[in-house]
Amino acid sequence: MTPSPAIIDGLQYCNWSEAIFRDIAASGIAAIHVTICYHENFRETVANIERWNRWFESYPDLLVHGLTGDDVRRAKAENRCAIFFGAQNCSPIEDDIGLVEIVHTLGLRFMQLSYNNQSLLCTGCYQAEDSGLTRMGREVVREMNRVGLVIDMSHSGERSTLAAIEASERPIAITHANPSAWHPALRNKSDTVLRQLARSGGMLGLSLYPHHLKGGSNCTLEDFCAMAARTAELVGIDHLGIGSDLCQDQPDSVVEWMRTGRWTKEIDFGEGSQERPGFPPQPAWFQSNRDHINIAAGLAKVGFGKDDVAKIMGGNWLAFFDKSFSGR
Amino acid sequence: MTPSPAIIDGLQYCNWSEAIFRDIAASGIAAIHVTICYHENFRETVANIERWNRWFESYPDLLVHGLTGDDVRRAKAENRCAIFFGAQNCSPIEDDIGLVEIVHTLGLRFMQLSYNNQSLLCTGCYQAEDSGLTRMGREVVREMNRVGLVIDMSHSGERSTLAAIEASERPIAITHANPSAWHPALRNKSDTVLRQLARSGGMLGLSLYPHHLKGGSNCTLEDFCAMAARTAELVGIDHLGIGSDLCQDQPDSVVEWMRTGRWTKEIDFGEGSQERPGFPPQPAWFQSNRDHINIAAGLAKVGFGKDDVAKIMGGNWLAFFDKSFSGR
Repeated sequence: MTPSPAIIDGLQYCNWSEAIFRDIAASGIAAIHVTICYHENFRETVANIERWNRWFESYPDLLVHGLTGDDVRRAKAENRCAIFFGAQNCSPIEDDIGLVEIVHTLGLRFMQLSYNNQSLLCTGCYQAEDSGLTRMGREVVREMNRVGLVIDMSHSGERSTLAAIEASERPIAITHANPSAWHPALRNKSDTVLRQLARSGGMLGLSLYPHHLKGGSNCTLEDFCAMAARTAELVGIDHLGIGSDLCQDQPDSVVEWMRTGRWTKEIDFGEGSQERPGFPPQPAWFQSNRDHINIAAGLAKVGFGKDDVAKIMGGNWLAFFDKSFSGR
Repeated sequence: MTPSPAIIDGLQYCNWSEAIFRDIAASGIAAIHVTICYHENFRETVANIERWNRWFESYPDLLVHGLTGDDVRRAKAENRCAIFFGAQNCSPIEDDIGLVEIVHTLGLRFMQLSYNNQSLLCTGCYQAEDSGLTRMGREVVREMNRVGLVIDMSHSGERSTLAAIEASERPIAITHANPSAWHPALRNKSDTVLRQLARSGGMLGLSLYPHHLKGGSNCTLEDFCAMAARTAELVGIDHLGIGSDLCQDQPDSVVEWMRTGRWTKEIDFGEGSQERPGFPPQPAWFQSNRDHINIAAGLAKVGFGKDDVAKIMGGNWLAFFDKSFSGR
C-alpha cells in the first residue's frame, strides 16, 4: 500500500491551543501555513514568533517548525504537523527592505503585500482606487524573490495583483480566496487574475471562510466542490490547493482586530455587517481540521480522480513549497 | 602535504570595509567572531545584522555567514572567511527571554552577560560590587544552553564569571582577555577564573588589545608569547585561542560609544585616560589580520610544537564551535 498523500492547508488563523494541536495531529494534516501577523510591526511579529517557538518546544510530538518542503515529508512520516509562518500584511518589514531577509531567516515563508488597505508596497482590495505596485513594492518583490519569501496577494486589489504576478520572477500565491465569478466578494478573484496566476506557475488556495462562499455559511459541500472543478478547468489541476482560512475558536474581538488594526478609530465591518459583525459560522461540513477529509470525499464525488484529489489536498502545495522557499 | 590548519580569531570589531575583507581573505583567516552589538537593543542589533547581510550579498567571494563549525571548514576550503556574530552585552534580548532563541536563529553565536556595568543578567567588571547572576541571569543561562548560544564573560566581574561557569551546563568562553597575573587590568582574569573556565571545558581567547597587554602598545611579541606559554600550563593547551579584539580603522568616537553607550551623560575613559582617551596604537607586530602569522611564529619560537601552535591559532576554537552552536 502506498502511503496516503500529505494534506496541506494553505492558510489558517486558529486560536491555537493544545486541543487544536491534538486535533490536527489526530487528523493527519501534514502542514499548515499559519498567519502570524495582521497589523503587527516587526517587533510585535517577533513576539508572535516567540509564542510559536514556545509551542514548538512544548509540543515536540505534535509540531515541527516548517522551513522547507522536506519538513512536510518529515512531519508526515512522524505523524506531526509542519507549521509554516505567513504574514497577511507587509507591516513586519516596516519601511526597511533589510527586514525581508531577517523575517525569512526567522521562518516567514509567505507575506501579503497589502491587507485590504493601501500599504507601502501596493493597494488592498477594499481601496476605491488601485495604483498597483509602489516604488518600494517593486524593490521588495525582487528581494522576496531573492530570499525565497512567497508573495501572497489574497487581500490585494486586482491591478496590484496583476502587477505583482508580472513583476515577480518566481510564482506567487493567492493562499485563500475563491473565484469571484462564483461568488462576487471583493476578496474573491477575477478569472483574469486566476488565469495569469496559473500561467506564471502560481497557486490558488480555495477558501472555506463563509464570506468567500456562495451561500455563506449555508454553502453546500457539493456546490463548493463543483466550483473547485470549474476552477481546475480554468487554472489547470496543478495550480489548485486548499487555503481554508479556518479561524477556529477565535473570539469576535479578533475579527475586529483583523479589520481595524490601528488604522481607524471607527468600526469597519469588512465583509460582515452591523447586524453580523463577528465571525460567521462555518459550514457544517468544515468546522475543524478533522473535516479536510470531507472535502477530499466531496472532490472525488464531483469527478476528480484519486491523484487529482491528492494534488488539490496537498500535493500541489508541496511542489510549490519545494520550489519557493530557498534563496537564489 | 597536509592542508594548513584553520586560523580563527575569537573576537574583532573592525570598521569593516571591502579593504579589510580583502585583507582577511588574502591572509587566509578561516573564521572571525565579530562583535555586532555593544549597547544596541533588539531592533538596533537587527539593523546591524541587516548590514552584515548586505556585506554577505555583496562579497560572496570573500565572506560566508558562519553558523556551525562546518562553515569554517567550508570557508577555508573556498579561501573565504566565515563570520560568526557575537554581542558584547545582553542588550539585544532586552527583558525578553524569548529573544534568546530569536537572536540565535538570526545567527548570534556568542553573547556576553554584561558589559562593564550591571546588566539584567549579572555584574560587569567595572562595578564596585559584584552580586553574581540575577534571577533572570540564571534563566537566560539555561536558555542559552538550550539553543546553543555561547556565554561570553569577557567584560563581567569575577564572582559573576565564576557563577556563570557553575550555572552553565555547557562550556563557556572568555573570548578576549589575558591573565591578570601577567597584567592586572580590571578586564583581565584571575588564575582562579581561568582554572575554573578550563576545568569546565571552556575557552580563553588571548587579547591583543593594548590595554590588556603588559607594556601596552609596547608589549613585545616575545613577552606576549611567553605569557601564552605560562597560560597554557595553567589552563591546558586545549583551552587556549586568540581573541585579538582588533578594532582596525575605527575612529575614536567608537571607543567612546563602547564605553558610554547611553548609560551616562558624562565621559567615561574606561581603560584609557583623559590624556589618552582614544584607541591605543596596536603593537607593531599586530596591526591587522595579516599579522596573525607573526603570532604563530612567535608561539613556535617560545617552544610550542607545530600541533600546539595550530591548536592555539584556530584548532581549539573550531573544536569549541563544533560542540557549542547547535541546540539540544
